Order: sequence, then structure tokens, then C-alpha cells
Amino acid sequence: MDPYPPAIRACLEELEKLPGIGRRSAQRILFHLLARGPEAQEPLGRALLELHRGVDRCPECRAYREAGGACPFCADPGRDAGCLCVVETPSDAFLVERTGEYRGLYHVLHGLLSPLRGVTPEALGLEVLTVRASAPAVREVILATPPTAEGEATASYIAQSLEGRGARLSRIGFGVPVGADLQYADAQTLARALTGRRDYI
Amino acid sequence: MDPYPPAIRACLEELEKLPGIGRRSAQRILFHLLARGPEAQEPLGRALLELHRGVDRCPECRAYREAGGACPFCADPGRDAGCLCVVETPSDAFLVERTGEYRGLYHVLHGLLSPLRGVTPEALGLEVLTVRASAPAVREVILATPPTAEGEATASYIAQSLEGRGARLSRIGFGVPVGADLQYADAQTLARALTGRRDYI
Repeated sequence: MDPYPPAIRACLEELEKLPGIGRRSAQRILFHLLARGPEAQEPLGRALLELHRGVDRCPECRAYREAGGACPFCADPGRDAGCLCVVETPSDAFLVERTGEYRGLYHVLHGLLSPLRGVTPEALGLEVLTVRASAPAVREVILATPPTAEGEATASYIAQSLEGRGARLSRIGFGVPVGADLQYADAQTLARALTGRRDYI
Repeated sequence: MDPYPPAIRACLEELEKLPGIGRRSAQRILFHLLARGPEAQEPLGRALLELHRGVDRCPECRAYREAGGACPFCADPGRDAGCLCVVETPSDAFLVERTGEYRGLYHVLHGLLSPLRGVTPEALGLEVLTVRASAPAVREVILATPPTAEGEATASYIAQSLEGRGARLSRIGFGVPVGADLQYADAQTLARALTGRRDYI
């Protein structure tokens, strides 16, 4: 018997649905919110209810933007419109941003090709990508999908459909993570590191 | 520059205030919610807004109950009203419940005595506890505050104020956690395990 009042149980159930939040973490968060009072609960509750209304996808690159507002990437004149980086998720785009190494634009797939799960090229916005990548100003399309079976299949499909349209097609490098010991790299990663080796200058 | 739309930034900031949620976890939760759409965000948002309205404290034991409703402990005729367990937080009461070893009632302090931070005996509801513990039916008061300086001071204060009122006063046992190797117990814990030793029958 769980002696939780219904309002607590409802909140616990919703918290437990979040990624990385188990029963213990959900309880910890819940009792923290209860002890802090409504000043702690209401801003998060409101922010969650506002989240969907306040955010939509840029029709060009499909990254998240302020609903109906300017895309943080496409509308920024300081960015290099000659380079497109294709990523699986919006959070992948933010990860690329955090490197500080990329100043081009994006195409966010919001998924990977999967005939079994019904994810088609249309669902990934590949028609828009093809139009954008065919513009004469676009020099390069970087395929930054993950090194999984679906990620590779998606990269390969996009590469085939964009071939011969003028832009250079590249794939991000895979290999041993920087700062890690070789011992921690699995055999597949090490195999990619070997096939992806470069001349030592 | 963080290219997050305001609605995303607001939600991230609130998520990061939760205990155990860092920047990375907050982003992971947020992008999960965005990808799932409003069906994923709204129930949690609503549950959080309902949380405070739907929950209050039992005026007897100060545990959480359905607002204005029956206390899950005090109102349960199947529980032993002759035993009170004093805990720091409502989540401690739920932890005790989970053991399945306790069928008595509770007193939830919602804090520990701390003159420096202005936490007085009144703030912990000790007047109500004294009245309840003085009832002839109460045989035992178990002091289950944590083995920290403030937890010990609070247990000691309560023990002094309840002494001579008829009920037996006990303190939960401290020592080496069950299932753990002695190697993982720090010196203080091992010291408590030694002073708290029992005859081996």
C-alpha cells in the first residue's frame, strides 16, 4: 500500500515518465517541491504548459525557434550559408553549437530513416534539404547522423540523393574519443579509428 | 551565445533547479518533452500546478495527506496508535513505510532544530508531539532523526522534553549497512556499530 495522496501520486507518475528519472529521483524531486511550496512548483508547471505553444520548427532547417519567430540559425546573417550540417535531433544541433567549431546552417531530421517504423524520407524533410543543398551557394553538406545502423543508412540515403548537385558531401569523423584511454574504446570504435586514420604530418 | 527560444530557456532554467538535475539532464528531459509533443508536457505541467492545492499536512502528525482529507496514517484504524515514530521529512516516513516493519503512527518534523537558521521547537510542531506522546495509550516514541549533529541534537531535545511522561523513548540503530562490506563503512559508522553492539545469542 502506497499511502500517497492522489495529487502526489499523479505528480510522481508524470515525473517517472521523464528520461533518466526513476522512482527514487521522482520522489526526491517531489518532496523537494512540496517542501519548497508553490513558489517552487508553479514556475515549472507553467513553463511546461507554455513550452509547446512557445516553440515551433523553422520551416527551412527544422530547428526549434520561438513560435513564429526568427530561426536562431537561418536568420543569423553572421552564419555561413554555404555549409549545411545534417543532424538527427535538435539537441544534436545544440551539441554541435557547443563545440564552437561550426558556423554554418543545419538540417534537423527529427529522426532516422526506418522503413520498419514507417519513418520515410518525407518525414525527415529530405525534400527541403535537397532544394537547399542544390543552391549554388552551398559548398558542403556534413552528414552528422550517429554511427548506428539507422544513422549510417540515413547518411547513405542522403548522400545518394544529393550526389552530383555540386556540394561536397562529408561525414563526421569516428574513432577513439579524445581524452580517453585506448583501453576504453570497444573493438568497433577502434576499427573505425583505424579505417579513418590520417597521414601523420 | 545559447540559441534557445525563450520558452525552452524558461523550462530549462526551472528544470535545472530540481535536485539531482544538472544542465545535461535538464536538456535531455526538455528535448524528450519537445519531441513527444504537448501530450507529454501538459500532464506534468498540470500535475505540478495541482500539487500544492491537492496536498496539505495532517494537523496531528504533519504527514502529507489529500488536502482537507483523511491522514493516511492517523485515520487508519489498522495502525498501532501506541507507537509514534519521529522523522525529519515526509519522505523519511515513506522510507520507514517501505520497510514493512512499522505499523505505528508518525510525527513529521519538517526540519531539524537549528538555532542558527532560526528553526525552533515550535517550527517542528513539538508542542503537538508532546501532547500526543503524553496520552496514556502511547507506549513508545521512536526517534528516527538522522545521525548528524542537528539530527542528534533534535533527538536529544525531544527525549528531554518527553522524559517522565510514561512512554518509552528509543533511537533507531546505527551501524554498518546490511549487505555492505565492512570496508565500505567509514570510521564513524563503524564506531557507532561497535558502541551499538548486541549480545550474540
